[in-house]
Amino acid sequence: MRIDHYDDFDWQGLLDSIGADIAPLLTHGEVANYIPALAAVDPESFAMAFVNLRGETFTTGRASTPFSIQSISKVFALILALELEGEALWDRVGREPSGTAFNSIVQLEEDHGVPRNPLINAGAIVVTDSIVGHCGESTAIARLLAFIRKAANSLGPRIDMKVAESEEAYGDRNRALAYFMKSFGILKEDVPIALKAYFQQCAIAMSTVDLARAGLFLANGGTDPATGLELTTKTRTDRLNAIMMMCGHYDMSGDFAFSVGLPGKSGVGGGILAIIPQVGSVAVWSPRLNQAGNSLAGTQALQWFSERSQVTLF
Amino acid sequence: MRIDHYDDFDWQGLLDSIGADIAPLLTHGEVANYIPALAAVDPESFAMAFVNLRGETFTTGRASTPFSIQSISKVFALILALELEGEALWDRVGREPSGTAFNSIVQLEEDHGVPRNPLINAGAIVVTDSIVGHCGESTAIARLLAFIRKAANSLGPRIDMKVAESEEAYGDRNRALAYFMKSFGILKEDVPIALKAYFQQCAIAMSTVDLARAGLFLANGGTDPATGLELTTKTRTDRLNAIMMMCGHYDMSGDFAFSVGLPGKSGVGGGILAIIPQVGSVAVWSPRLNQAGNSLAGTQALQWFSERSQVTLF
Amino acid sequence: MRIDHYDDFDWQGLLDSIGADIAPLLTHGEVANYIPALAAVDPESFAMAFVNLRGETFTTGRASTPFSIQSISKVFALILALELEGEALWDRVGREPSGTAFNSIVQLEEDHGVPRNPLINAGAIVVTDSIVGHCGESTAIARLLAFIRKAANSLGPRIDMKVAESEEAYGDRNRALAYFMKSFGILKEDVPIALKAYFQQCAIAMSTVDLARAGLFLANGGTDPATGLELTTKTRTDRLNAIMMMCGHYDMSGDFAFSVGLPGKSGVGGGILAIIPQVGSVAVWSPRLNQAGNSLAGTQALQWFSERSQVTLF
Amino acid sequence: MRIDHYDDFDWQGLLDSIGADIAPLLTHGEVANYIPALAAVDPESFAMAFVNLRGETFTTGRASTPFSIQSISKVFALILALELEGEALWDRVGREPSGTAFNSIVQLEEDHGVPRNPLINAGAIVVTDSIVGHCGESTAIARLLAFIRKAANSLGPRIDMKVAESEEAYGDRNRALAYFMKSFGILKEDVPIALKAYFQQCAIAMSTVDLARAGLFLANGGTDPATGLELTTKTRTDRLNAIMMMCGHYDMSGDFAFSVGLPGKSGVGGGILAIIPQVGSVAVWSPRLNQAGNSLAGTQALQWFSERSQVTLF
Repeated sequence: MRIDHYDDFDWQGLLDSIGADIAPLLTHGEVANYIPALAAVDPESFAMAFVNLRGETFTTGRASTPFSIQSISKVFALILALELEGEALWDRVGREPSGTAFNSIVQLEEDHGVPRNPLINAGAIVVTDSIVGHCGESTAIARLLAFIRKAANSLGPRIDMKVAESEEAYGDRNRALAYFMKSFGILKEDVPIALKAYFQQCAIAMSTVDLARAGLFLANGGTDPATGLELTTKTRTDRLNAIMMMCGHYDMSGDFAFSVGLPGKSGVGGGILAIIPQVGSVAVWSPRLNQAGNSLAGTQALQWFSERSQVTLF
Repeated sequence: MRIDHYDDFDWQGLLDSIGADIAPLLTHGEVANYIPALAAVDPESFAMAFVNLRGETFTTGRASTPFSIQSISKVFALILALELEGEALWDRVGREPSGTAFNSIVQLEEDHGVPRNPLINAGAIVVTDSIVGHCGESTAIARLLAFIRKAANSLGPRIDMKVAESEEAYGDRNRALAYFMKSFGILKEDVPIALKAYFQQCAIAMSTVDLARAGLFLANGGTDPATGLELTTKTRTDRLNAIMMMCGHYDMSGDFAFSVGLPGKSGVGGGILAIIPQVGSVAVWSPRLNQAGNSLAGTQALQWFSERSQVTLF
Repeated sequence: MRIDHYDDFDWQGLLDSIGADIAPLLTHGEVANYIPALAAVDPESFAMAFVNLRGETFTTGRASTPFSIQSISKVFALILALELEGEALWDRVGREPSGTAFNSIVQLEEDHGVPRNPLINAGAIVVTDSIVGHCGESTAIARLLAFIRKAANSLGPRIDMKVAESEEAYGDRNRALAYFMKSFGILKEDVPIALKAYFQQCAIAMSTVDLARAGLFLANGGTDPATGLELTTKTRTDRLNAIMMMCGHYDMSGDFAFSVGLPGKSGVGGGILAIIPQVGSVAVWSPRLNQAGNSLAGTQALQWFSERSQVTLF
Repeated sequence: MRIDHYDDFDWQGLLDSIGADIAPLLTHGEVANYIPALAAVDPESFAMAFVNLRGETFTTGRASTPFSIQSISKVFALILALELEGEALWDRVGREPSGTAFNSIVQLEEDHGVPRNPLINAGAIVVTDSIVGHCGESTAIARLLAFIRKAANSLGPRIDMKVAESEEAYGDRNRALAYFMKSFGILKEDVPIALKAYFQQCAIAMSTVDLARAGLFLANGGTDPATGLELTTKTRTDRLNAIMMMCGHYDMSGDFAFSVGLPGKSGVGGGILAIIPQVGSVAVWSPRLNQAGNSLAGTQALQWFSERSQVTLF
């Protein structure tokens, strides 16, 4: 893409066309049902929001309705943990695609308890463990929430305690991952404490427009273009985008790179955040998922977004 | 990056600085010794070449010395196979990072003989099988070589038959991969015929400057900016760059994306090709390899190239 | 079991009762169809034969009809290879249950090309490679056949060349295993030569009564009780029986030990040989297989044989 | 073996010879150090005890010194669980060799949370979960201990609470296994409750002579030959011995069957129990372990025991 092409681009027209074309897809796929609290959502919801570096916001669908961002929170947690712990964090979590499902434990055994990357569950638990270690049990998630609110420039993001409790009630697989890593010394905090924070982190809710706004600094080298706040460095931003590109969609990361061509992160709540460096940040939400656990309509919407605007990185 | 920043960039100065700084690294790492023909090279060779969209060429080191590009040929073979077979090729090779070593057979068993991506050995054998199927046994590799020469706008690229014979003599692991896929019906041609072509493909030799030039169309949406020849479509170019980004460095692809931030492909001959969309194409060569089988000095040189010019995609 | 209990046991009555009870099961399961030559057999065939240490023979069903013993030949090949190569054979094949399917290649990658045991395909190919190494390409299988004829005290056993050709025509998976091991230096002979012998070994045909007779020396410490010929030592006999117990039924070996309680080896031709140390040798044949690839009726017949005569080792 | 050969066998002479020959081996191998409580034992201890069906007891070494039987308790727990739950227990634990290490979690993921057999850690946790389910949290282990004391006809066996606490303190790997199985619904009780019982079960301590005596009913079809108590049925006894043969020594079960030829179970405390059906029960103890985690001197002692008395099953 040539960035200057986008100065006068009709983003609203693009979003309107996607909103119109997506309707037939909203009845396909299945809403995540691994926790009851997620299954309660209207399955045919759809929203999309784009924020550019000038701070202009474009939306279609229910862009102000909060939803559970689930694993998308892993991106913000990773930035915060890097700010707190620095590059030493990479001693206990890798940055390679895993080639396996989001909750696989096989890779952990091969690699002596070190998760392949920070965007699969095991790696994200390490990241949360780091935040808890630096901020303390009682303030870790408050600190993360504050970070996200600052990035979104909004008080909208909050913890949905009903979802957090549901995560905790159905959290045995994550407990297995955590104790496994603990047995190798990769986790430093007590497992129940680290997991309590992790379950709350997964339960962060926010609107599609807030989510797009929260990702904007990642399109601008780490600095919020509207407020001027430096949330992280340029180098870390580049690297985060690289990690999202490589690992953001579990074992369909390659497919997302192939068809959308942007760094992104999906969550089982049906949200996806994608970054267009130097152009803007786009979020989409639609609860029904494809077989790999990514939003079915959301993935298609982003593919159209990329094709029709030609914003692919490649 | 902002592409217009690079109109007056001092590329030669950048390459000169890298050439000067790289010297102490040239004694680190080990030359590939899995085939005798590769071990014969001067281990401390170094070359780097950059070609921009205007067709300007900048070099440092032994940029005119031919070397064995080995797995880098997989990129050109993939483009040719897609031109010949179309998207049906994706029915028998995936596009996900493998998370395992370049010659692993474990993943093949899990996935019923379908290789995870076309840049690991198994996937590249499928690609070659496709070319042989469309061009015939006798002309397949001639066709591939012609494609590379056209891309490089040079008659320099050739098959090093001594290396090809060495590949064949030490090819039992690749035979195992090929017969395994054949048993699942993924390979269509006779195994010895497909492998004969594959071994020759691995033995393509060319200079660093020719290699950079041969990658230029991938930085320009599929069309050679100097000759105007359309070697492939814009969509296919985007997707190829995405595949290189995700899978170009075996089980260190994530690390390369993290530290260099560009689509690239390495070979055990010590070469690496990297693409900077809309800016240019860069190649590096240094025979000593790191533990993952990628050029040690070459990887560092590309990291400096990316950092100092700020050409990372992210 | 107390061995002296069996001096006056009514073996013929036992076999008659099994022959009568088995009829309803003969329509269950599927005949092996991985090679066409095997699929040509009458699927509802059934035969059982028992030979005791006195040399008395008892049969039911089509006990004189030859069938393809397939993997059961691995037992005789192993004894012969041990006689030829001695304990050094264990340097290149293990003796642990594999926990995976008969033709799995995953375990080979973990163990650097050394098969887990000599009764899975990869291990049996190593065994055949050893015989070829010691006897030469032209006489290896003739030597194995002579060994089996001596053990069976019969000229009945022969190579079914039609089956051998079918094995060769559909042998790509075994080629993959062989080249994989060759790449680690575990196989010593040329792969096509070792495999040609292996395919013929798999194609040995003999009757159920000859098969039971051929196993008799394994129930008598290595010496044929009728002829007095020492085919192998007592120690090797004990160990062979142990290996059959641990590994004789692929990933259902535990189930066979649990329900039958005897050392045994099955083949996809529908045959099973089981040894009752110091009592006798029993063979069964019925072509339809269960999901693990073992004779469905044959497994049940052996379970009844063991339960009704109380010959379990445990 | 012919059982009547053993009526006048000089068992004491056999044990004396083993006791004399084993001395040089007692300084080889390493004491288990995964929990501090185990590391406190005298590393060069050695004891062996044999009890025959007449109830005669023969010993050598420190046969009255209690030691931590660790995983050997899995055998007694399995019998008790089968008495309580019946064959339905096999719905949630398999009976195949695992082909992997005692605490591997890889196999669990492949098999949807069902452990391969009841003698690896995951399977034993299922067994304990069953006992807790049937007996209640407060009496489960008391019930198991009562069963073992009845089998041993001794009040010697007890729970070593210091070891139990050490197991609990270093139990994260087992917690991972348990939560993983819980996430698939294979465990029925609360994980901390099931594990508390499991840790105590691992901490059972008893002398070598008591251990040999406790195994005697397994050599006699389930009935204690001295007291006439039927502890389990003949069928279950046969099957238990089969399971011990197949799975009793983790990923060296095949080697034990090959070299010793008896059903047996080892523990990281350095104990091994082996059963000679219709002859007797033999126990050995020596704390230093080989690389697979089985008693180094104990394994050798049992091999000599088997060779010199010719009691191998095969």
